[in-house]
Amino acid sequence: MKTNWKEFVKSYHNFAEVNVNLDLSHLILDNEFLQKITPLWERSYSHMIALEKGEVGNPDENRMVGHYWLRNPELAPDSEIKTEIVSTIKDINDFSSKVISGEIQGSSGAFKNFLLVGIGGSALGPQLVDKALWNAEIKGLNPFFFDNTDPDGMQATLDRIGRENLPQTLVVVISKSGGTKETRNGMLVAQKAYEDAGLLFSDHAVAVTSEGSQLFNYASENKWITTFPMWDWVGGRTSVMSTVGLLPAALQGFDIQDFLKGAKECDNLTRIEDFSSNPAALLAAAWYKAGNGIGEKAMVVLPYKDRLELFSKYLQQLVMESLGKEHDLDGNVVEQGITVYGNKGSTDQHAYVQQLRDGVHNFFVTFIEILKSEDGEPVFVEENITSGDYLAGFLQGTRSALFEKDRESITLTLPCLNAYYLGFLIALYERVVGIYAIMVNVNAYHQPGVEAGKKAAGIVIECIENVDKALKEKKGELFHVEQLAELIGRQGDEEMVYRVCLHLSANRDSFVKQGDSLAPDKIQFGFQSV
Amino acid sequence: MKTNWKEFVKSYHNFAEVNVNLDLSHLILDNEFLQKITPLWERSYSHMIALEKGEVGNPDENRMVGHYWLRNPELAPDSEIKTEIVSTIKDINDFSSKVISGEIQGSSGAFKNFLLVGIGGSALGPQLVDKALWNAEIKGLNPFFFDNTDPDGMQATLDRIGRENLPQTLVVVISKSGGTKETRNGMLVAQKAYEDAGLLFSDHAVAVTSEGSQLFNYASENKWITTFPMWDWVGGRTSVMSTVGLLPAALQGFDIQDFLKGAKECDNLTRIEDFSSNPAALLAAAWYKAGNGIGEKAMVVLPYKDRLELFSKYLQQLVMESLGKEHDLDGNVVEQGITVYGNKGSTDQHAYVQQLRDGVHNFFVTFIEILKSEDGEPVFVEENITSGDYLAGFLQGTRSALFEKDRESITLTLPCLNAYYLGFLIALYERVVGIYAIMVNVNAYHQPGVEAGKKAAGIVIECIENVDKALKEKKGELFHVEQLAELIGRQGDEEMVYRVCLHLSANRDSFVKQGDSLAPDKIQFGFQSV
Repeated sequence: MKTNWKEFVKSYHNFAEVNVNLDLSHLILDNEFLQKITPLWERSYSHMIALEKGEVGNPDENRMVGHYWLRNPELAPDSEIKTEIVSTIKDINDFSSKVISGEIQGSSGAFKNFLLVGIGGSALGPQLVDKALWNAEIKGLNPFFFDNTDPDGMQATLDRIGRENLPQTLVVVISKSGGTKETRNGMLVAQKAYEDAGLLFSDHAVAVTSEGSQLFNYASENKWITTFPMWDWVGGRTSVMSTVGLLPAALQGFDIQDFLKGAKECDNLTRIEDFSSNPAALLAAAWYKAGNGIGEKAMVVLPYKDRLELFSKYLQQLVMESLGKEHDLDGNVVEQGITVYGNKGSTDQHAYVQQLRDGVHNFFVTFIEILKSEDGEPVFVEENITSGDYLAGFLQGTRSALFEKDRESITLTLPCLNAYYLGFLIALYERVVGIYAIMVNVNAYHQPGVEAGKKAAGIVIECIENVDKALKEKKGELFHVEQLAELIGRQGDEEMVYRVCLHLSANRDSFVKQGDSLAPDKIQFGFQSV
Repeated sequence: MKTNWKEFVKSYHNFAEVNVNLDLSHLILDNEFLQKITPLWERSYSHMIALEKGEVGNPDENRMVGHYWLRNPELAPDSEIKTEIVSTIKDINDFSSKVISGEIQGSSGAFKNFLLVGIGGSALGPQLVDKALWNAEIKGLNPFFFDNTDPDGMQATLDRIGRENLPQTLVVVISKSGGTKETRNGMLVAQKAYEDAGLLFSDHAVAVTSEGSQLFNYASENKWITTFPMWDWVGGRTSVMSTVGLLPAALQGFDIQDFLKGAKECDNLTRIEDFSSNPAALLAAAWYKAGNGIGEKAMVVLPYKDRLELFSKYLQQLVMESLGKEHDLDGNVVEQGITVYGNKGSTDQHAYVQQLRDGVHNFFVTFIEILKSEDGEPVFVEENITSGDYLAGFLQGTRSALFEKDRESITLTLPCLNAYYLGFLIALYERVVGIYAIMVNVNAYHQPGVEAGKKAAGIVIECIENVDKALKEKKGELFHVEQLAELIGRQGDEEMVYRVCLHLSANRDSFVKQGDSLAPDKIQFGFQSV
């Protein structure tokens, strides 16, 4: 397939006020499809208007959905929310400049680093912003992250910070609910490291959490430096423009006003009712077309920009957690969603692009092009040709090579990458997800499916405790899994008991496993008597 | 769904000699399927034996496939290859210890860092090894990477190294063919940075490439420190145990002998003819079962270990580039492949696991469990419960919650993560891919689909040159895209010409675009006269 120039011009959308282009020439929205999508767009449009006005957008959890107010507090449904957004941004700016200037200090001079403890939306947004905007000339703190409950991973991060630098490392603990176990664990591991280094943890810690949460109370009781608020009308995956994302960004010295401005101006543009003047409506429609409104095709996200490498991972969370739903808003089983993956171009051309062109046809691509290749003086790698010319050439080349084989793609072009356009990009996809969700009639703002895993994990943790306790009481005796399950009242859960024993045998002193080469029902476990 | 204990025991495979377990209880290979897969396994088995003996495994490119020899040179088909492998590993060890000890120096004392310039297999393997094995106690060089042709990304990496540290930074340029443009560009950008710092680049550079390649000749002519060989019987995506991966690993101070040993012992285990004693055969069969032999389901890879975060990306390349093929070995159009994505648990539970449990049912999961949680003294986050217990609990919890909803998974359990088990893991999946490819009858060792994109990119680069040249000759005049296409003899390629102009307008001084808010066919481009 190849588009001709006239078709290209027709399906190429220019948003001159923000200098952004959206090219749908390789994923054509034909007239027949436009007729089908129009009523769905109209429904989405009304819904978005109501949502922005403060109607309950998340009916299952009876919550408003207010991330659009974060960059335009004038839109907030009441003056209390408006005032709180404005004053919090001011607090973040004040606090961050005092930290950067050294007016607020750790136990040994000005802070040089921060360690962010968070998971999901409370880590990925700040990681994206760090990677996208880091610049040697911006003077701020260096970021480190605990984004999991892996003790080995946390130790590696502490080693990279260096014990000698802990006095100059601010810890930012982020949990909206204040009860996320991974974050609680990370906080305790960090606290222990400070105590081991002879430091008072509370002199180095700030919390970002909902008022009254476990974390909020813990921070108050222990006299942490300060606490920033989180609001129940901001979801984790859209929290990067709340305190969750703004505090780390400001601590790194990034321009949070420009970041918010880019998002605000994108919101203005994507609030337009006229379908073809609204890039978010067009993108949502393109997703619908590509995946037939049921996610038949995965979306491969390929920014041709190293700084945007995490954007595909960011969209993976935003899109899949928002759209991947069992029920629609009317309670029907629909098993919706759109699979998202990708890293960056042209690097990925040396990886899975082989399959994209030749293999299973189960995807469409979103190319993200950043026109300005670099800020400094370019290095010419051939006469009149730069590395950036190659990057642009590879994007176009791959796009054409895929289209030749009928593989569709969207190309989004931004003039450059800075705080403004990062904010723009995030806001754009937040809006696309919101629109698409209503087109396919799902609640984009809850995540009922993750509860089951957490609950099941709770049972496993309880089982670890019970096995540990029961076997300590019978030190020196060895048990088969079936016996042990009976002993702790877990008949029927032998598989869990077995896996728990295997884990304990690798992680508890003198917990032994006898019969390594045998089948699980023949192995015996227990504590050695000392 | 829930398995009972007897079913679990039956589908749980223990490989006692290496202390590895493979759990297929959540992706059952029933008798009917086993009957179907047995003849395919027999074909794969014979093929793998022939391959290891040096038969041409990559018929399209008429090449042997020898990555198995790298960890067991005794298997090499002739003594020349054997000697070369052995002596090269010795050279790598000698060179690396001299670099680490400071016997081989840069222009200002011992090397502290290296900058690896490579892409695809020539960067991702070393990045995986770095992330998996880094440890504060191992004394070696700190790694940095250029893995793309993005000048802005390269500048950020140079800034992170710091100009003042270039004298102590060794540059390792890796390109098997020696002609990869991204790597050539990266090398030139690095060279320029050294020259700008008043340093002789050649005193800081080594090459890893095929004898006689462009890069090989460039390194010789310019008297680089040294060159290490690459062989045509090692493909990029399986090159991590050749010079490509071993040199960076040795420079970081990692135990490359143990890394190779783990792979060798995995090869021994996966060379067994008895299907149920061979973990690679079982895994290949499970992939076949899950995706019906045509990649109907994507493979989500979830290691519950921060250090293995890049493993899913590594497998994405290995699996998709190997299996994603248009034609089978008999020339039929098959459009094969298996889509792979993932990051790490439990982090991803706070992202797309919502969709996995509730949404589109288009995947199966591979959980990778590392039994030993940490090396040091654990921090107890509750009475008798550690962060590592939580990590284990989350893995089990998510696995069960998915299976309840009929989402299948494989769980692979390793006792710990070190150089040995990293080598084991890589070798295991190399073998699975080799076996699966023969089961579905495709060539796993070529990548014909990437050529089209490169060729198309070459045409774009030529177009950049031509537009630049033509408009410089007509400085002061502005052209519509159609006129310009005619001017450079590219009628019919207006879309390319337009995209090239847009790129140039952002990246060439005094290249102007007139009519920002207009459609592409109404905008005019040209160089301003000065």
